[in-house]
Amino acid sequence: MKISRDDISAMEKRYRAQLVNSLPGLKSANLIGTADENGHPNCAIVSSVVHLGSDPPLLGMFSRPHSVERHTWENLKASGFYTINHVHDGIWKEAHQTSARYPRELSEFEATGLTPHWSDSLPAPYVREARLRIGMKFLEHHELPNQCLFIIGEIVEAEFPESALQADGHLLLEAIGTCGISGVDHYHQFKSLGRLAYAKPELPPRELKTSS
Amino acid sequence: MKISRDDISAMEKRYRAQLVNSLPGLKSANLIGTADENGHPNCAIVSSVVHLGSDPPLLGMFSRPHSVERHTWENLKASGFYTINHVHDGIWKEAHQTSARYPRELSEFEATGLTPHWSDSLPAPYVREARLRIGMKFLEHHELPNQCLFIIGEIVEAEFPESALQADGHLLLEAIGTCGISGVDHYHQFKSLGRLAYAKPELPPRELKTSS
Repeated sequence: MKISRDDISAMEKRYRAQLVNSLPGLKSANLIGTADENGHPNCAIVSSVVHLGSDPPLLGMFSRPHSVERHTWENLKASGFYTINHVHDGIWKEAHQTSARYPRELSEFEATGLTPHWSDSLPAPYVREARLRIGMKFLEHHELPNQCLFIIGEIVEAEFPESALQADGHLLLEAIGTCGISGVDHYHQFKSLGRLAYAKPELPPRELKTSS
Repeated sequence: MKISRDDISAMEKRYRAQLVNSLPGLKSANLIGTADENGHPNCAIVSSVVHLGSDPPLLGMFSRPHSVERHTWENLKASGFYTINHVHDGIWKEAHQTSARYPRELSEFEATGLTPHWSDSLPAPYVREARLRIGMKFLEHHELPNQCLFIIGEIVEAEFPESALQADGHLLLEAIGTCGISGVDHYHQFKSLGRLAYAKPELPPRELKTSS
């Protein structure tokens, strides 16, 4: 079926949000850890972490200014640091629950049973239960036409199970149970189809082997 | 294992790219269709399409100015339009092959066996083999600290199998075989863990039913 821009505009608000959120394809599922000036920890799920570059190592994410992600933005702007923690198949329900509108004085950590974990390197909490964790330094933000914020940060440190690391630097994320999200609320595990070698005009696609 | 910013900087270039690209988690897999002023079609795989908002319906993506995605950027800037086409489990190898550095005069469509498909609504080709296709109008771009471009567009139209549409607007992407990418070259199918209702502070996580 085909839908037009006018069809989308005419949709009921939540229906439209479900549909338009389904269109880009699968999204990453991450918990963002921040702390306010008193060290009070905050944790929020986001489905918008993206790779921006490897040298320097930059990741981006988006924040809606009026959503629950607002506390995340206020904390990371004030402290200059945040953490990114992969949601996995053992914590996906707790991760989703962090999107509830808890009052500011109640940490999503306490409310959902996730555990803050502090590193000496930065004033933002990791999620202890996560298996892949990234410490981030805030660099800059851009305001988008719909008032959404695009937040850019640089990787300070990263921690992951050595067993997931392949000889060429690739991480086997399905081996550590990393989840993805489609739409606004649909969580997925993923299953490897295969890796493909760097594409060259004169050669057909060639599969790469993975080792576990 | 834990790695620092200095460890990342000291890595061999390709190893670093593999590792840092693995860190954000699963990424969407899409083919971007564009055409130059003579209607010559171009097709490029990107793993960076993100949802920015539903009203107006906005999607973003990133382009490295010196990569093969440069033709995509030049075409979409000149014509003002592009298409986004989900990679699925039947075309993932052809999709990856579009990343080879073909000479400009050879279309990735011809080179890989994918088929351009034109709509009356916009001067950019869809990928006929894709099952979910989105027509996009270019809105604006931002330049990032690493010279990467962040491209924002508005949805003009979208086409997908009605069978994937749930009663609340959610699309069951695994029902149409949509793929995800981890790292730079690892393709995945995905398997549903479940959908969760809108989170509320006073209620535990509750699963939503899906129908196929």
